[in-house]
Amino acid sequence: MNNLFLVVGAGAIAMLFSFWKTTWINKQNEGTNRMKQIGASIADGAMAFLKAEYRVLSIFVIAVAVLLGFANAGRQDSSILISLSFIVGAIASALAGFLGMKVATKANNRTTHAARTSLATALNVAFTGGSVMGLSVVGLGVLGLGGLFIYYSNHFGYDPINIKIVLNVISGFSLGASSIALFARVGGGIYTKAADVGADLVGKVEAGIPEDHPLNPATIADNVGDNVGDVAGMGADLFESYVGSIVGSMVLGASILAAGVFNINFVLLPLFIAASGIIVSIIGTFMVSVKEGGDPQKALNQGEFGSSAIMIAAIYFLIQSFLPDTFVQGGVAFTSMGVFYATVIGLIAGLGIGLITEHYTGTGTSPVLSIVKQSLTGPATNIIAGLGVGMQSTAVPIMILAAGIMGAHHFAGLYGIAMAALGMLANTGIQLAVDAYGPISDNAGGIAEMAELPAEVRERTDKLDAVGNTTAAIGKGFAIGSAALTALALFAAFMVQTDIDSIDISNPMVMAGLFVGGMLPFLFSSMAMGAVGRAAMAMIEEVRRQFRDIPELKKALDLLNLKDENDWDEDDRAMYEDALGKAEHGKCVEISTQSAIKEMVLPGLLAISSPVFVGFVFGAETLGGLLAGVTVTGVLMAIFQSNAGGAWDNAKKMIEEGVDVNGETLQKGSDAHKASVVGDTVGDPFKDTSGPSLNILIKLMSVVSLVIAPLIA
Amino acid sequence: MNNLFLVVGAGAIAMLFSFWKTTWINKQNEGTNRMKQIGASIADGAMAFLKAEYRVLSIFVIAVAVLLGFANAGRQDSSILISLSFIVGAIASALAGFLGMKVATKANNRTTHAARTSLATALNVAFTGGSVMGLSVVGLGVLGLGGLFIYYSNHFGYDPINIKIVLNVISGFSLGASSIALFARVGGGIYTKAADVGADLVGKVEAGIPEDHPLNPATIADNVGDNVGDVAGMGADLFESYVGSIVGSMVLGASILAAGVFNINFVLLPLFIAASGIIVSIIGTFMVSVKEGGDPQKALNQGEFGSSAIMIAAIYFLIQSFLPDTFVQGGVAFTSMGVFYATVIGLIAGLGIGLITEHYTGTGTSPVLSIVKQSLTGPATNIIAGLGVGMQSTAVPIMILAAGIMGAHHFAGLYGIAMAALGMLANTGIQLAVDAYGPISDNAGGIAEMAELPAEVRERTDKLDAVGNTTAAIGKGFAIGSAALTALALFAAFMVQTDIDSIDISNPMVMAGLFVGGMLPFLFSSMAMGAVGRAAMAMIEEVRRQFRDIPELKKALDLLNLKDENDWDEDDRAMYEDALGKAEHGKCVEISTQSAIKEMVLPGLLAISSPVFVGFVFGAETLGGLLAGVTVTGVLMAIFQSNAGGAWDNAKKMIEEGVDVNGETLQKGSDAHKASVVGDTVGDPFKDTSGPSLNILIKLMSVVSLVIAPLIA
Repeated sequence: MNNLFLVVGAGAIAMLFSFWKTTWINKQNEGTNRMKQIGASIADGAMAFLKAEYRVLSIFVIAVAVLLGFANAGRQDSSILISLSFIVGAIASALAGFLGMKVATKANNRTTHAARTSLATALNVAFTGGSVMGLSVVGLGVLGLGGLFIYYSNHFGYDPINIKIVLNVISGFSLGASSIALFARVGGGIYTKAADVGADLVGKVEAGIPEDHPLNPATIADNVGDNVGDVAGMGADLFESYVGSIVGSMVLGASILAAGVFNINFVLLPLFIAASGIIVSIIGTFMVSVKEGGDPQKALNQGEFGSSAIMIAAIYFLIQSFLPDTFVQGGVAFTSMGVFYATVIGLIAGLGIGLITEHYTGTGTSPVLSIVKQSLTGPATNIIAGLGVGMQSTAVPIMILAAGIMGAHHFAGLYGIAMAALGMLANTGIQLAVDAYGPISDNAGGIAEMAELPAEVRERTDKLDAVGNTTAAIGKGFAIGSAALTALALFAAFMVQTDIDSIDISNPMVMAGLFVGGMLPFLFSSMAMGAVGRAAMAMIEEVRRQFRDIPELKKALDLLNLKDENDWDEDDRAMYEDALGKAEHGKCVEISTQSAIKEMVLPGLLAISSPVFVGFVFGAETLGGLLAGVTVTGVLMAIFQSNAGGAWDNAKKMIEEGVDVNGETLQKGSDAHKASVVGDTVGDPFKDTSGPSLNILIKLMSVVSLVIAPLIA
Repeated sequence: MNNLFLVVGAGAIAMLFSFWKTTWINKQNEGTNRMKQIGASIADGAMAFLKAEYRVLSIFVIAVAVLLGFANAGRQDSSILISLSFIVGAIASALAGFLGMKVATKANNRTTHAARTSLATALNVAFTGGSVMGLSVVGLGVLGLGGLFIYYSNHFGYDPINIKIVLNVISGFSLGASSIALFARVGGGIYTKAADVGADLVGKVEAGIPEDHPLNPATIADNVGDNVGDVAGMGADLFESYVGSIVGSMVLGASILAAGVFNINFVLLPLFIAASGIIVSIIGTFMVSVKEGGDPQKALNQGEFGSSAIMIAAIYFLIQSFLPDTFVQGGVAFTSMGVFYATVIGLIAGLGIGLITEHYTGTGTSPVLSIVKQSLTGPATNIIAGLGVGMQSTAVPIMILAAGIMGAHHFAGLYGIAMAALGMLANTGIQLAVDAYGPISDNAGGIAEMAELPAEVRERTDKLDAVGNTTAAIGKGFAIGSAALTALALFAAFMVQTDIDSIDISNPMVMAGLFVGGMLPFLFSSMAMGAVGRAAMAMIEEVRRQFRDIPELKKALDLLNLKDENDWDEDDRAMYEDALGKAEHGKCVEISTQSAIKEMVLPGLLAISSPVFVGFVFGAETLGGLLAGVTVTGVLMAIFQSNAGGAWDNAKKMIEEGVDVNGETLQKGSDAHKASVVGDTVGDPFKDTSGPSLNILIKLMSVVSLVIAPLIA
């Protein structure tokens, strides 16, 4: 067991790496005073949101910790320890979000400044920012889980009986991570979309000023939203998946017999794979470098695929050295090579789902083109086409998932399914670095616009952003695939902990659970969309109010719309400069923050309380039905909504860039473009709020069930 | 067993009743020559579609019958008999659609004519038309099932062993009914929406002429669509549910032991309940009568609720006289009163789901009002609100369904679930009469418009149509609820026939089946929506072509749009009259027919082949997972799509009638109205094509599995 300190050591290395890279980012040039000022506003807004969010969540965390303690009061000293795990998990998740966002808001305008001179430097800054996020997430995950495991296994011992207690207590860590993740995703998703819709609808459509224009009072809130939604939200999301897949496979590993006896190595292996993933991710970050004039896409691919290849090799050696050649789970014999195959199946499945995602949502693909065509006959046909594409896009990923489940189970039983999820998530460090790089480049572009830098800067940041699309799609595929597999692993772990042998669909209690569970993602999505609608409405009113009540803004808007900028005289220019400082960005930031915090509570509580209610009132088997239902429709609705939203978005972008359909060139400003904007607006809450939240919903409900498993067994 | 002839006798009475009422309809006045001409065009178009559809389906029926025969070749003489049942079921379903539609197309213009003098007479004609449909459906169902059961039970015997063969062979009847129903619903749904969208988009929006205008080449096709979609499609749908719930409960009845031995009465009871439902329905039709100046809504309610009350009493006495006081199913003891309670639970659940449907889709309710409000900020927010309402509307129906499943099972086991479905469907005769009355009144209004009758006629038919809304919503609730319960009953029957004890979700094969099954309704919906899109596109092009290429139409359109009708001189009027005969309605009817037939094939084959493929390749348990998945998401997607579509529709209607929101009066022609039209157009394929098709999909897949059960057991 002493080598467990290697695991904790890897976690510490990740944190040191993050610290080193943060220091490097801090040293980069922030650019002009105006850029500094904008960057500071965004950073302040983002921190204000996080503070407000964490204030509410800390009450929630304390309340749940107390409840957990009471509920487990009969179970020796595990009551206080499960609360401890929960609190540590919640803090680690919050910290990961905080660190990631802190450095992202710093990297934003430093990327902008770098883009003033070269694409390569800008890529370097943006990716470094992302890598801090990535390594913080895996570092905190491994540190927390490894540390708690060392402490608990010393405390309880790790014989076959006590390891079950250790693993139950440690699952509180996963619960803490999941709860924070859900609120972060939902709250961040509401924030970012409310600000986005408000900025677009009043600024772009009603007042006729371009995106990210400094006169628009909602621009800062919009950019803050990108940080809290896309960066902090995603970080918490992947932290949860990562931790969930490790915990799920540890629990399942404990149910394995090798040569007739319990073998702790099956429980330890997931921790070591995660630890090795940290080293591989760090190596991967060094592979991402591009020389001036080089291809940034190639650089990212090198990092992503290169590290995947090393990861496979690392997993192979770890399995060979940790596991006995054969073992028995659930009465069936498997081999250690089977575990390896299961892991590789997980990796391939994630890749496959990612490529399909790219096919259904990428610029120029046939499904997106079909939406472009249907935009010619107006918004209604655009919407129908988008909904159709989203629904259709569920087919192949689900087939891949089903095949993956069967394959992984064939090779290594339930443990294999958990290892497949872990295989997808092992190099989360670099994955997340690539993912977080996207919103950083996006924000850098926004700052370039607001600071009125030359157009070439915006072009460079746009190019950076576009380069990340394929890798982002693959990342999305991994997120969805791993969410499904992690949920299944946790589900299997739940069964092991409750000691139920089967969850029989022909039992009407299970069928009823299946129906109600299947319904929850629909209810949850409708809540999320309603919340975005209400929050956006409040934002729209505030922006309208400012344009109406602040005379300087009104005058500057009239000037912009009525007089070409080249014809401005000195008075005009002075008036315009004067107006630039007058928009009350802070008010908009405040409105987004308050709406998001208020609106995230109800869906969050629904997710957490429903498995508890069903489990205690109807028992473990009905709860099993509920989990299966929520997992199946949750995955389906997540794919449907994310891909429909992505496809609408790119259909709009294709039209904005100009596309030939039936001999007609569609362009910005055409009726088809207006139709495509409607689709994009409908898709926004789909792809950025309700869709990704469902990924967390399914894992959170599984982990809640896992934690309460001993109580309802 | 001789009293089984009472069952067949009740079926015969239903057919005689239908014949009598048809003769009565035939005797009513058809109105002016123009009305006759229009009525004939619609009737011809509808028959042309049915002919074309049945031509394709007859090939399908023969092919499947042959396949069924071959597949069962090893099983004595049941091979030929299962094919026989299948063919009889298919013919009975087709005949029910044919008879219902034939009399509906006759009742259409006779209702219009009646509405020229009074509301009461018009109600009488429309309802009589509907009652022919209703009684034909139940009559053919009971005749077919009763007749085949007498024949097969004489042939095989009805001891505990042979009854299983009898019931397997008879399930072919249900398969025949389901297959035809799916094609009828999908084909009819595509037809009606293609014609509707084509007529609206080019006629109303581009050419600026009112709905149902005789100059619009697509109006006849539009009215034909209402008949083939809403009348024939609905008839086939309910025929399928009705037959499925009877067969499902018969199979489950055969697995019951009373006092330790098999008791045939559990198998016979469903047939007798169905037969008594015919008599109750006929009594119910006599309760629907309204005196001049009376309230038509009250008349319909009397028929619907009065017959439900009698039905409950009839079921009570049948159960008391057929069933022993106690019995055992699946090792658990139940009482005959338990069966009665289960049936009543089914009825109450159906009613509850209906009332919720009304709440989410009715004019003036808060969810619909929320869509109206969100129309103020444009089509995007209208769409988001509608999707949100549709998703949210799944929550309570699913809770009711889950409670119903648990309650019915608590009182009478799996047999109780089947009886709950049968309880909802026992008085299908009168239910369907009330349902079919709606589209007949709707069509009568269309004819009034096309024949240019005074506005008061249209007002009367509109009132008739509106009156049916609540009863229609309740009918929809029964359709969805009974589809879910019937699917579950067939699912349980499938398990009985395959002799599998449990379908364990923790078995990854079952979980994979659950995922793939859950995905099918998404894929199926996307296919249906794509088909409507393509068919509508063809229709739009044809209508545009006619407006462009037929000079008389073009001139008349210009006249209509440029000169007030009161200012027309004689030349104008002559030219207009001349143009009226020039629109090539037949071409549009043909295009709709061909597109619908072509497009219905792929989704239909997907539905039928997927359970066969999964069953033979992966076995019965995986197939069980597939069925559970398709049932859960099928019900959810059906509720979501139907209610979203209904809510969008009524939000548009509320704006058209004028509604005050935030101190502003929204009206026809306003921007909010345009936004609501977008929502309504998106909702059309949702509520009339993909939504209702899913009801059939879930039953069809269950019945396919039931039929192949002995082969994969």
